[in-house]
Amino acid sequence: MTDFDVIILGGGPGGYIAAERLGHAGKKVLLIEEVALGGTCLNVGCIPTKTLLNAAKTYEHAVHGAPFGVVAGDVTVDWTKMQEWKAEVVSKLVAGVGATEKKAGVTVVDGRGIFNGPGSVSVGDKTYSGDHVILATGSVPVMPPIPGTEDNPALVDSTGMLAVESIPERLTVIGGGVIGLEFASLFATLGSRVTVVEMLPEIAPFMDSQIAGQLRGALKGIDFKLGCKVTSLDGGTVNYTTADGTETSVDSDVVLMAVGRRPAVQGWGAQESGLEHSRAGIVVDDRMRTNLPNVWAVGDVTGRSLLAHAAYRMGEIAAANIIDGEAHRRGEVMRWNTVPWAVYSIPEVAGIGLSEDAARAEGREVITHTVPGYMSGRFVAENGFRAPGAAKIVIDARSRQVLGLTVLGAYAAEMIWGASVVLETELDIFDLRQIVFPHPTVSELIREAAWAIDA
Amino acid sequence: MTDFDVIILGGGPGGYIAAERLGHAGKKVLLIEEVALGGTCLNVGCIPTKTLLNAAKTYEHAVHGAPFGVVAGDVTVDWTKMQEWKAEVVSKLVAGVGATEKKAGVTVVDGRGIFNGPGSVSVGDKTYSGDHVILATGSVPVMPPIPGTEDNPALVDSTGMLAVESIPERLTVIGGGVIGLEFASLFATLGSRVTVVEMLPEIAPFMDSQIAGQLRGALKGIDFKLGCKVTSLDGGTVNYTTADGTETSVDSDVVLMAVGRRPAVQGWGAQESGLEHSRAGIVVDDRMRTNLPNVWAVGDVTGRSLLAHAAYRMGEIAAANIIDGEAHRRGEVMRWNTVPWAVYSIPEVAGIGLSEDAARAEGREVITHTVPGYMSGRFVAENGFRAPGAAKIVIDARSRQVLGLTVLGAYAAEMIWGASVVLETELDIFDLRQIVFPHPTVSELIREAAWAIDA
Repeated sequence: MTDFDVIILGGGPGGYIAAERLGHAGKKVLLIEEVALGGTCLNVGCIPTKTLLNAAKTYEHAVHGAPFGVVAGDVTVDWTKMQEWKAEVVSKLVAGVGATEKKAGVTVVDGRGIFNGPGSVSVGDKTYSGDHVILATGSVPVMPPIPGTEDNPALVDSTGMLAVESIPERLTVIGGGVIGLEFASLFATLGSRVTVVEMLPEIAPFMDSQIAGQLRGALKGIDFKLGCKVTSLDGGTVNYTTADGTETSVDSDVVLMAVGRRPAVQGWGAQESGLEHSRAGIVVDDRMRTNLPNVWAVGDVTGRSLLAHAAYRMGEIAAANIIDGEAHRRGEVMRWNTVPWAVYSIPEVAGIGLSEDAARAEGREVITHTVPGYMSGRFVAENGFRAPGAAKIVIDARSRQVLGLTVLGAYAAEMIWGASVVLETELDIFDLRQIVFPHPTVSELIREAAWAIDA
Repeated sequence: MTDFDVIILGGGPGGYIAAERLGHAGKKVLLIEEVALGGTCLNVGCIPTKTLLNAAKTYEHAVHGAPFGVVAGDVTVDWTKMQEWKAEVVSKLVAGVGATEKKAGVTVVDGRGIFNGPGSVSVGDKTYSGDHVILATGSVPVMPPIPGTEDNPALVDSTGMLAVESIPERLTVIGGGVIGLEFASLFATLGSRVTVVEMLPEIAPFMDSQIAGQLRGALKGIDFKLGCKVTSLDGGTVNYTTADGTETSVDSDVVLMAVGRRPAVQGWGAQESGLEHSRAGIVVDDRMRTNLPNVWAVGDVTGRSLLAHAAYRMGEIAAANIIDGEAHRRGEVMRWNTVPWAVYSIPEVAGIGLSEDAARAEGREVITHTVPGYMSGRFVAENGFRAPGAAKIVIDARSRQVLGLTVLGAYAAEMIWGASVVLETELDIFDLRQIVFPHPTVSELIREAAWAIDA
């Protein structure tokens, strides 16, 4: 007789949702978390950044309301108050996760869980047995071994950036991915002079490159240095080599290292237990099974997707397949192409499925179409005629099935779940054209793209 | 040989989209519009109201940003500027519709079209022949014969309300439907003291009554008089009888009559031509065919739905079935249950399909669940923990099919198209639970409701 039906290592989105689903299904669950329930996302990731970005958006709207008839004199940002509100949101939501787990009958233990192998996990000097183990240890920020990064008081990672004492006058962000762009947009809106240094020729490489270019043009007050490789740091001075080989530098008060995150596969027994893994993450199948019996892995530690909602879904799939060995036959398998993404910059971008670049790289024959923001009456009313905005659709040239969608503009993150349904139900372009969108909405850009595409 | 393949009476959403689709399909199309392309929606409906409501929302955010760390001193509303921006948006979008029709090869004629019967329409002394006629004459505001409504300078309809010269100090709105609520929310936000007098026991009778009650509580600065019947007007004084029979009154500077709209079935030949119709609209089947051969009707004039996007879809269905007699076999028929709706009050509400009340009234056995706004991390971050918000889901108790969804809160209108896809593809609750929503979004409230429902 084991202590628990399921033991879960890590209380972030993947771990806590699995615990909740399993608990509600009557399983006896142990959830082990070393730092705080909610993991990176809730404590130092999605939620605090979106809280600050909302304040920045409010500031932006207040400052730029005059063309619409709203004149605000003397708008100021109270960074301390922003931090307090952020802290309140995080602490209450963390408490909420705790309450949810309790309601689901989940036992929560504070501490670092060590995986001893199938069926066994230790926390400190206590060892627990369980029929199943779910590994959900998350990821950590990458700090590349660039000269000048060690003991540099001007250098922060995303966690440090959330807690800077004041809005920096000059900020340099190393890395133009999601995290870098959100922070760059946040502080540029709040008045910092922001430089983004990106090694690749375009920001946001996961994104359709056409839309990424439009996003770059839309992000106000940010100086982008593309194709530039950082060579060393000297306090707040970032030295880098440009695309044509020139050595140059940018001075700043704060430097944010945002070159990515990597799966947390060290320090908890992955190596010792024979678990198949690499630096890229724990190897899993589409039911989230590892190579070890009754050992599952979900979330960032799999390295398959570093998105909180992907972790949720992985957690649910592991839970569903633990509860019912036949669950995979009911569709309870991970479908990576139907996981949307969103960047909460000002303006937002969101998308799903294949970008045009990715589709062509796969050798697929596709048809694409992009419509500008001014095709939506609401977009125009709220942003003006020349504001950056777009919806791009990618369909298979033969089957006409919808393969991907990207939207640039306000509300993008809120509307993209509809595209998840479109991809999950494998609609073709003719089906999509029959969908009724409410008028007037920015979401109608998707409809406009669907009708305008040559298919 | 006829002059045109298709003649369309009315250049509102239903008429102009039909013209565009038919034109692109190579049909020779005549579009007749008496007032302005875009119809009620674009000229005096959806677009101008949303333009003003966005300004009001901007004002609201600027004034109430302090808890989030944004302090704006002295925020003022420039009503003249709001009106100018509204006029610019409308005029440019109207020009855009004209350009779109031109690009589609559609002939546009200014004037009142008179329907002479199948295949024949006159404008002034000119008569045109066409293989098909689409009737899209829209609707007009209802002005009930209440004493004191005639020649009352304080009384306006929705068109007049859009053009008031200043923000009224006191506004009374007769009617708590969509139009009444949007104007009430707009002017209450801008500082008017607003009273809404509604004959029924709850506002927004088309809406789930539970959510309607929550919306009523969420609309700040509005005094609701429910179950009250207006008996007469005396300038800005509205006399009414309360639910318990008391005669009372409310004084105001402007009175908005917003008790509804009715199909425009008079003055263009409906009576004379043998067209089957009533005061409730022209009778159509699910392909938008009337009782007369090759005569179709779309939009408000059918009385089936007075929503611009329903008109779009009706226009497309008429066009599809004119282009191809077999189109209905490819799903080109009107499915009323998959038409979403949205109220752009502050906060927004949007929904689709059956409300709990409507389902029970049909005798259906349903399961429902409602989650509060604070279940979404983004909702909390942007609105606080106690802000009104909700998502309610209605499913069939036996099949578990999703029948309806309603969302109260910011972004509701932008996220509801996803529910159109859910209803179109007839997902059940287990399918919906497998859909991945981006995190953190307010749209995740739908996911929370789907997981929390007892099914």
